[in-house]
Amino acid sequence: MDWHIRFSDEKGCLLLLDQRFLPNREDWFECTDTASTIYALQTMVVRGAPAIGVTAAYGCWLAAREAAGEGWEKRLETLLTDLENARPTAVNLRWAVRRMRAARDARPGLDHEALCAFWLELAKEIHEEDKRLCRLIGTHGATVIDDGDTVMTHCNAGALATADYGTALGVIRGAVDAGKRVEVIANETRPFLQGARLTAYELHKDGIPVKVACDNACSLLMKRGMVDKVVVGADRIAANGDAANKIGTSGVAILARHYGIPFYVAAPLSTIDRETPDGDAIPIEDRTPREVTHVGDHQITPDGVGVFNFAFDVTPAEFITGIVTERGVLLPPYSESIARAFAEREAEESAR
Amino acid sequence: MDWHIRFSDEKGCLLLLDQRFLPNREDWFECTDTASTIYALQTMVVRGAPAIGVTAAYGCWLAAREAAGEGWEKRLETLLTDLENARPTAVNLRWAVRRMRAARDARPGLDHEALCAFWLELAKEIHEEDKRLCRLIGTHGATVIDDGDTVMTHCNAGALATADYGTALGVIRGAVDAGKRVEVIANETRPFLQGARLTAYELHKDGIPVKVACDNACSLLMKRGMVDKVVVGADRIAANGDAANKIGTSGVAILARHYGIPFYVAAPLSTIDRETPDGDAIPIEDRTPREVTHVGDHQITPDGVGVFNFAFDVTPAEFITGIVTERGVLLPPYSESIARAFAEREAEESAR
Repeated sequence: MDWHIRFSDEKGCLLLLDQRFLPNREDWFECTDTASTIYALQTMVVRGAPAIGVTAAYGCWLAAREAAGEGWEKRLETLLTDLENARPTAVNLRWAVRRMRAARDARPGLDHEALCAFWLELAKEIHEEDKRLCRLIGTHGATVIDDGDTVMTHCNAGALATADYGTALGVIRGAVDAGKRVEVIANETRPFLQGARLTAYELHKDGIPVKVACDNACSLLMKRGMVDKVVVGADRIAANGDAANKIGTSGVAILARHYGIPFYVAAPLSTIDRETPDGDAIPIEDRTPREVTHVGDHQITPDGVGVFNFAFDVTPAEFITGIVTERGVLLPPYSESIARAFAEREAEESAR
Repeated sequence: MDWHIRFSDEKGCLLLLDQRFLPNREDWFECTDTASTIYALQTMVVRGAPAIGVTAAYGCWLAAREAAGEGWEKRLETLLTDLENARPTAVNLRWAVRRMRAARDARPGLDHEALCAFWLELAKEIHEEDKRLCRLIGTHGATVIDDGDTVMTHCNAGALATADYGTALGVIRGAVDAGKRVEVIANETRPFLQGARLTAYELHKDGIPVKVACDNACSLLMKRGMVDKVVVGADRIAANGDAANKIGTSGVAILARHYGIPFYVAAPLSTIDRETPDGDAIPIEDRTPREVTHVGDHQITPDGVGVFNFAFDVTPAEFITGIVTERGVLLPPYSESIARAFAEREAEESAR
């Protein structure tokens, strides 16, 4: 049984474990059409670049089903464009919709019913594929973690951010599965608190030792020698290795460099966008003030005071020790190692 | 009328605006004896090094009053020691109790009633003196702020952290009073949210433009050129200029250096502890997990997951552009400029 992203044959919809209410409540959100899928993406019922990609793949199927009837092809294009634009930063959203479109375009003449069936199967395949990729990231990532390490992570790049297992937390799970003792410091990750709520929740559930720290404790914990490695996920990696991830990540990376701590990014190749030359070209989402002004229903800022809520920042490639992918750990210079990883994958695919 | 720290002649006690509930509620907390004063200090009804000093001065008077009767001198010493140890990091607590003791010791033979009267007057004097010092910090600090600056501050080193006006916010108020346009970015300052709750509240009340940012937005805001200066307070400054301040401050300082942004500390000389040689000798308070696990009554971490709650960190002197005191802006090397400032003050005092 899939954990937090489930296709329900019975209900004919996509079910998402609603991450807005974890760890306090385990509610399921039903995506039944494009609008509800976009709502789920935008309000962060589901988040994390790979999980967004998997959700968007099912979203394409829901869009196709919704577009039924005379002139469905045109309506479908509009729905797909809306879906693709639901959030700006994570490239996996666009990647998934493009991949669904490309697979369809490679099979011209599919009627509406056939497309729906084809896309549902493809979405399930992308879903399964993401699980495999995360396991591979874990296997490769385990090599950079030493027995006894305490690993700091920021945000949630775990099972809840992917189909399963995780990218950054995949590296940690990979190390644990390889028999290494690992402890985790989860930065709480304001304002949405993915670290405190989600990373702590899923690691604790798996019996992996985890403690939560406020984001601003990073410098002190590093200074005291309490952090051996940093491993984070990514929402988009540019062709030169600059990596967009949850707001605060670049600060953690700069502090890690200051204190001499290795800093790794873990992500599948689908998060690397070779059309984005560098970090400056990555759009940064600006989200609703309410996420900052309130925690749950509790208001923390005075009425009338504005806030900033940029959701991501970009860590320059120079601060990244390695990028852990399903094809191994890429090392600087990333322009070269990234190009090589893609070329090797293409060679393998065309050899098949 | 004093703002948040008030001696009430009518009630014969110290009244504190309860900072645990700001900005949502304006409650007054009554300190009627040593235990209630210690409780107020430890739970952060009142916080901020200079405000802790003023509270402790009144606390000595409350302790003296409480110690009445046969053998009062001995009981008083125990109460003063308890008071002095209420919190470990801010040196102003110890400074205030020492100053009260020294003033008493310079007037041997005071009976209980006379001591109570003397100490109440001295506490009021320390209260007034802190207001004057903050104004002087503002006057000197205004010189480092340019018209049109956006100033980032961390935690609350404002009116609520002093008798009035503030240290870091004193610098900002000083610049505004000198006719400069200044905007403020208040880091929210998890876990107690002094920035979101207190700095935003008091600046907004004064009509000084302020926006709140999550602590982890610091790197992005600096990278985008949105921060011209950083000004923070301090809880204890060592003889070499290393400065303990709210957790996260050292990270802000390291990022400021990375992005080429001047970083100032503002504090009265009473926050400089010449008996503390450097930052490594400053004890860092470890506070209750509940401040991290809950925001108001809202729980944000899963049950069973531990957290870190170190309340302060130390910014090495090398990251500090200048220390704004009531005697001017001290510049590196701080061992020398600090020693000179104290020597000049002593020379002035003995010339009087």
